[in-house]
Amino acid sequence: MSTPSTGPVIDGLQISNWTRPVLQELHDSKVDVVNATCAVWENAAETMRSVAQWLERVRVHEDLVALATSVSDLDRIRQSGRVAVLLGFQNTSPFEDDYRYVELFHRVGVRIAQLTYNHQNLVGTGCFEERDSGLTRYGRVIVAEMNRLGMLIDLSHVGDTTCREAIDASSRPVAVTHSNPRWFHGTSRNKPDDVIARLVARGGMIGLCLYPTVSGGEATSLRAFSEMALKMVETHGPEHIGLGSDCTRGWDDSFVDWLRNGRWNPPFGREKPRFPAWPSWFSGPADFPRLAEGLYDVGLDDATVAGIMGANWRRFFAEAITPEGGSTHA
Amino acid sequence: MSTPSTGPVIDGLQISNWTRPVLQELHDSKVDVVNATCAVWENAAETMRSVAQWLERVRVHEDLVALATSVSDLDRIRQSGRVAVLLGFQNTSPFEDDYRYVELFHRVGVRIAQLTYNHQNLVGTGCFEERDSGLTRYGRVIVAEMNRLGMLIDLSHVGDTTCREAIDASSRPVAVTHSNPRWFHGTSRNKPDDVIARLVARGGMIGLCLYPTVSGGEATSLRAFSEMALKMVETHGPEHIGLGSDCTRGWDDSFVDWLRNGRWNPPFGREKPRFPAWPSWFSGPADFPRLAEGLYDVGLDDATVAGIMGANWRRFFAEAITPEGGSTHA
Repeated sequence: MSTPSTGPVIDGLQISNWTRPVLQELHDSKVDVVNATCAVWENAAETMRSVAQWLERVRVHEDLVALATSVSDLDRIRQSGRVAVLLGFQNTSPFEDDYRYVELFHRVGVRIAQLTYNHQNLVGTGCFEERDSGLTRYGRVIVAEMNRLGMLIDLSHVGDTTCREAIDASSRPVAVTHSNPRWFHGTSRNKPDDVIARLVARGGMIGLCLYPTVSGGEATSLRAFSEMALKMVETHGPEHIGLGSDCTRGWDDSFVDWLRNGRWNPPFGREKPRFPAWPSWFSGPADFPRLAEGLYDVGLDDATVAGIMGANWRRFFAEAITPEGGSTHA
Repeated sequence: MSTPSTGPVIDGLQISNWTRPVLQELHDSKVDVVNATCAVWENAAETMRSVAQWLERVRVHEDLVALATSVSDLDRIRQSGRVAVLLGFQNTSPFEDDYRYVELFHRVGVRIAQLTYNHQNLVGTGCFEERDSGLTRYGRVIVAEMNRLGMLIDLSHVGDTTCREAIDASSRPVAVTHSNPRWFHGTSRNKPDDVIARLVARGGMIGLCLYPTVSGGEATSLRAFSEMALKMVETHGPEHIGLGSDCTRGWDDSFVDWLRNGRWNPPFGREKPRFPAWPSWFSGPADFPRLAEGLYDVGLDDATVAGIMGANWRRFFAEAITPEGGSTHA
């Protein structure tokens, strides 16, 4: 099994339970950068606590991980042999109804926020609502504020119309950190061709995703996944494709209930959800070299594989999160 | 000037600054019941404080007002010569993303909640968004929970599609506490004919509104307003029409900025809004007798005028807020 020696390995999204064993696994897997989810349904105060826990966590485990808030941080932390953590949200719920909270969370270190998580929120429509009314009036304010500060707009769990409008509204390129094309696996969590083309046309990235409900899980072979990546490269060019594993290491099934039902869905008259089974060839970050091998096996060259494994994300982040004028608050 | 002697005077909505002079004015105007707004953009914690302020306020000013949480309270407080206050929200923002908060707020005394305030929220689409995607998945949970507890669903600032779907989804009749038909004054804050007909067909109520932006303000005569009420009676029957003044007593222009822009709209590059001018014939609750006079002047009979002035709301509240089985938590 081989990983390109030249570039970083960057995972577009993980939502693991970040105990030391999980951090150790990530470190030992030679993942250089991870977008670590620190909010899904949480409000502002809950998310501040989640960020504070991360600030403590990177101090406690400073031998394994470090917090990154700029692309130079990504490079520096990689050189030190540790995992660089970019803090990200999978929802704009932490901003509540106050656009000023974008700057607040940017200042404490958050660099990525997905606009919606499956459902309607104040900003736009999630991918599992029946209808999608697009970016709201407040959503346009949030997009502008994220652009101003250099907080990456993530559209993974976002509805199609809201995706299109966010791509158009954003002055910076945006990303789908962890989804697949819908033709590969038919779910509204994956993206139709026109959304991917629109995203790419404006310099955006898509992180191909291993999570079973969007990859097909056990039923999908590494060959099929790699051929999908090949087709994506052929269709959209090699520079806009990355990976976003969506790893959920260290959780039990109560966490998938939280992800799916938050606080909004009464626990009566429905089954408790369970985590779906992962593909045999990818069950965690230690399998990233297998992915690279699969990409080589379908005929992709060194530079393209290196791009998909992380170099594309690295280049993209520079555009997405570097502050205007080049300096952060810090 | 005359008010029907038989029935109560009920105002479907006021959003005043409830100082003693404002409460005194309300009391002296012989208004028997008011739906008093205690949340517009506020979250759960802020709204709990707002309710707590009301609990204190009714003790401080117990000679003028009392809190009502049932229809028997409305009758009892009226007999004592005081104003009965029904606590209401103009948004579901106080419920945040937790359906259980509906019961929490019901238990502390809230009996009315408007599903959205102008904008998109977690529950549905407000009347000033460009597109309306209807009641969300969470919105259906909230409607069911409000029905279960006996909390009145208000659709005044709600978008048309969300209105239609909420009317259909609700097992209890719902209300538009403070809007006019759109043909009377063309704004998306007023309701199209089909929404009113659908509401009425399911036992609902509409409170005709004096607020300038929905009534036409200074440009509208008492005669024109009363003729609109007459036409509404002719079209929809006398039992489904009431009043919802939307009085905003005691505020300065900073409050209308809060109403329109909340925390979501940056204060840059836009004008500060100002309160619009009210009609000369209705500038506050003391003008309710004038309204009754106007209704008589267009030929409405005693029973119909009494219905519009309050008897219809009184009868409707029994259906809308009486708990299943007849007992409250308290």
